[in-house]
Amino acid sequence: MDSARSIFTARNLMVLSLAINVSFILRLGYQTFDIKREQLIGGDGARREALSTQRAHLSVSTTSSSSPTTFPGEDRHRVINLDHGDPTMYERFWQQVGDKATVVIPGWQSISYFSDIGNLCWFLEPEFAKQLLRLHKIVGNAVTEDRHIVVGTGSTQLFQAVLYALARPGVEEPISVVSAAPYYSSYPAITESLKSGLYKWEGDALSFSKEGQFIELVTSPNNPDGYVRDSVVNKSGGVLVHDFAYYWPQYTPITSPADYDIMLFTLSKTTGHAGMRIGWALVKDREIAKRMVKYIELNSIGVSKDSQLRAAKVFKVVSDSCESSRDTTESLFEFAYHLMVERWQNLRAAVKRSGMFSLPEFSPGLCKFTGRFFEPQPAFAWLKCEEPIEDCESFLRSNKILTRSGTHFGVGPQYVRISLLDRDDNIDLFVERLSNIRKDNLYQHMGE
Amino acid sequence: MDSARSIFTARNLMVLSLAINVSFILRLGYQTFDIKREQLIGGDGARREALSTQRAHLSVSTTSSSSPTTFPGEDRHRVINLDHGDPTMYERFWQQVGDKATVVIPGWQSISYFSDIGNLCWFLEPEFAKQLLRLHKIVGNAVTEDRHIVVGTGSTQLFQAVLYALARPGVEEPISVVSAAPYYSSYPAITESLKSGLYKWEGDALSFSKEGQFIELVTSPNNPDGYVRDSVVNKSGGVLVHDFAYYWPQYTPITSPADYDIMLFTLSKTTGHAGMRIGWALVKDREIAKRMVKYIELNSIGVSKDSQLRAAKVFKVVSDSCESSRDTTESLFEFAYHLMVERWQNLRAAVKRSGMFSLPEFSPGLCKFTGRFFEPQPAFAWLKCEEPIEDCESFLRSNKILTRSGTHFGVGPQYVRISLLDRDDNIDLFVERLSNIRKDNLYQHMGE
Repeated sequence: MDSARSIFTARNLMVLSLAINVSFILRLGYQTFDIKREQLIGGDGARREALSTQRAHLSVSTTSSSSPTTFPGEDRHRVINLDHGDPTMYERFWQQVGDKATVVIPGWQSISYFSDIGNLCWFLEPEFAKQLLRLHKIVGNAVTEDRHIVVGTGSTQLFQAVLYALARPGVEEPISVVSAAPYYSSYPAITESLKSGLYKWEGDALSFSKEGQFIELVTSPNNPDGYVRDSVVNKSGGVLVHDFAYYWPQYTPITSPADYDIMLFTLSKTTGHAGMRIGWALVKDREIAKRMVKYIELNSIGVSKDSQLRAAKVFKVVSDSCESSRDTTESLFEFAYHLMVERWQNLRAAVKRSGMFSLPEFSPGLCKFTGRFFEPQPAFAWLKCEEPIEDCESFLRSNKILTRSGTHFGVGPQYVRISLLDRDDNIDLFVERLSNIRKDNLYQHMGE
Repeated sequence: MDSARSIFTARNLMVLSLAINVSFILRLGYQTFDIKREQLIGGDGARREALSTQRAHLSVSTTSSSSPTTFPGEDRHRVINLDHGDPTMYERFWQQVGDKATVVIPGWQSISYFSDIGNLCWFLEPEFAKQLLRLHKIVGNAVTEDRHIVVGTGSTQLFQAVLYALARPGVEEPISVVSAAPYYSSYPAITESLKSGLYKWEGDALSFSKEGQFIELVTSPNNPDGYVRDSVVNKSGGVLVHDFAYYWPQYTPITSPADYDIMLFTLSKTTGHAGMRIGWALVKDREIAKRMVKYIELNSIGVSKDSQLRAAKVFKVVSDSCESSRDTTESLFEFAYHLMVERWQNLRAAVKRSGMFSLPEFSPGLCKFTGRFFEPQPAFAWLKCEEPIEDCESFLRSNKILTRSGTHFGVGPQYVRISLLDRDDNIDLFVERLSNIRKDNLYQHMGE
């Protein structure tokens, strides 16, 4: 078996990866889909710049992201897009893992719509369900007993499934949807997108006082600021939805298994596979889970089986490595933990050196998964620009750093959210640029 | 290379398929997701029956669906679920194709959200786009020049993207959505599901007379009745959306390349891979395509890359076989065409023998792809029960045949839609049961 596998690895995989790489040639690691996209690819000049940036770094993405192949002159003009949380820092880990995480799918797979008739969520692949339960058990970040699993096309689709499930169609007034500011910028955008009569975005949970039923979204650790959170609305009639996208041991200490009625997770921030579009919900109430499944039936008649099979495989590799050794580069969580330590250290040093910015401060906690006592090191930096900078996003954009303005998160323009999950060379260059912005050369940076 | 591949095929694939088969054990071929699901799995008795039916037929699904392993006594009590269009008849073809259609995906694939920065549809895999253009060119069923391709999580998601793209958020009144009855049952269900203020289902296009802007959905060949269709609303202010899910040469003669502004297609009815959840739209207008992309960003931040890579591969296999020989079992279209010929012949003979039902009659046409002159042989049978049967769906259900009532398609209960894309043994048993229903034993069948 081993000799057969090595032949397969060395030859077939090479040929097959060549074919797959065709689709990789124009792949993007610097592009936003959400807010800034038009700015970048709208104009031909900007598009050329983005493409040339990308091509210059292709070898980085397929070999090692720690050794950029760009020349210093190029770096100076490079646009660094850290607007969205594209988790490309995980590429290097999965390249190191090699063929253990490879999936082979024959042509006769994924014919039927159905995955598991016995399950309330009939489009849930049993192997995916098995592996995610195993991973939660190992990490200890969520109670999984007596829960229904609902798989979604990312946790984005599951969020909409939750809104549909919790709304009461017979009631005249739409259910209110709130979250404490700063809140994840997609919550209002999605909730308002279809002018639904079932639910309505009502903004900041801290100032919410409307009568009637409501949904409070609790993201913990929070996107964008990284703080561990609890619900804030202090009145009856509310249903809590917990978004635990970032409750993993590379970002924050796992202090206890989360135990709530509706909990959302996403593959993109767990293993880094954003392009698979896989999320899952752990749901206590059977009727709510059923209505979530109904939404996904209506919205997309289930979820890609191929991606569920791949997700099962990467979970298995992660769990296997956790069980065999926790302190080597074999472990995804160790790899990502150490990378985040380094990035936050460098970023805090740059912020200190600059004197023009500030970052959230966190209290350390004991992580029951690793046994480590450490401070949260979130996937995003929630950066505040100090005076006289008023619009932090515009200021950084003029320094060719694309971020997302605080205004999208329900707060002021002095804040921005910056992804720290990008490839090494982008993060390094960003930190370097930031550290060179000083009070004494500020107007030069503003005028650039 | 060849020897390496054969070792891979014989050993690795066997081991890997064992793993994949774990998820296959409970796979369903008899279950509806849409209307009848609760009936079947709601009660424990029904669930046991469905599961035991399924287990009894597992060997069919993994070997050949033409040799059922059930005993005659079991068949008599078996529930045959032909309510939805689960295209499991294609499994046998892809099993025959073997490893040519196998896809190998390494663990470092599908990390980034992005597939193609240069493309308006930034989550479209270039290889998928290339292969679908090639297939349309070979089959000649759609004009692809000067079109934007938008990929979706099935054409179901694309339908919603179209509604979002064509709605005008600034306008007070929602845009009307209509389709000539009998129309696809999911159109009203989806359009009404979120009580959107952007669009509103207004039912049968033939009786539509409301003022203002409207969207007319034209499904051709039509789901459920199989007829080739044109738009029917005769007034200005309308935008046509063409659903060409069934405009492929196994179902209907390809008379000319379709040439419309917005055309929807789906993998599930082309190659049979419903579980991949892949559809695509060919869109003339750039602004409409952009808004469709925006919807998919908001709804699911793109579409599974893994499934797009698999779809590209199965398209390639289909196109390759078309180019090398059109008349052997190597060709998907030939395989499916001959199966549909046989199924429609048997069904028409059974309907004739019974005397209690009727089916649509079609005019033959010249298929420019195959050069054949043939009658449409749709994916669904649109069956009418003759008097004294009033509720065709209930009547067939009492004979353990699950179908979808005409009431869901905007017409009366004397009609039902029956999937003809199921596995051979289910279709054979259904046809046999139908042929045994006669006027002289009708009350026995009604009382069962």
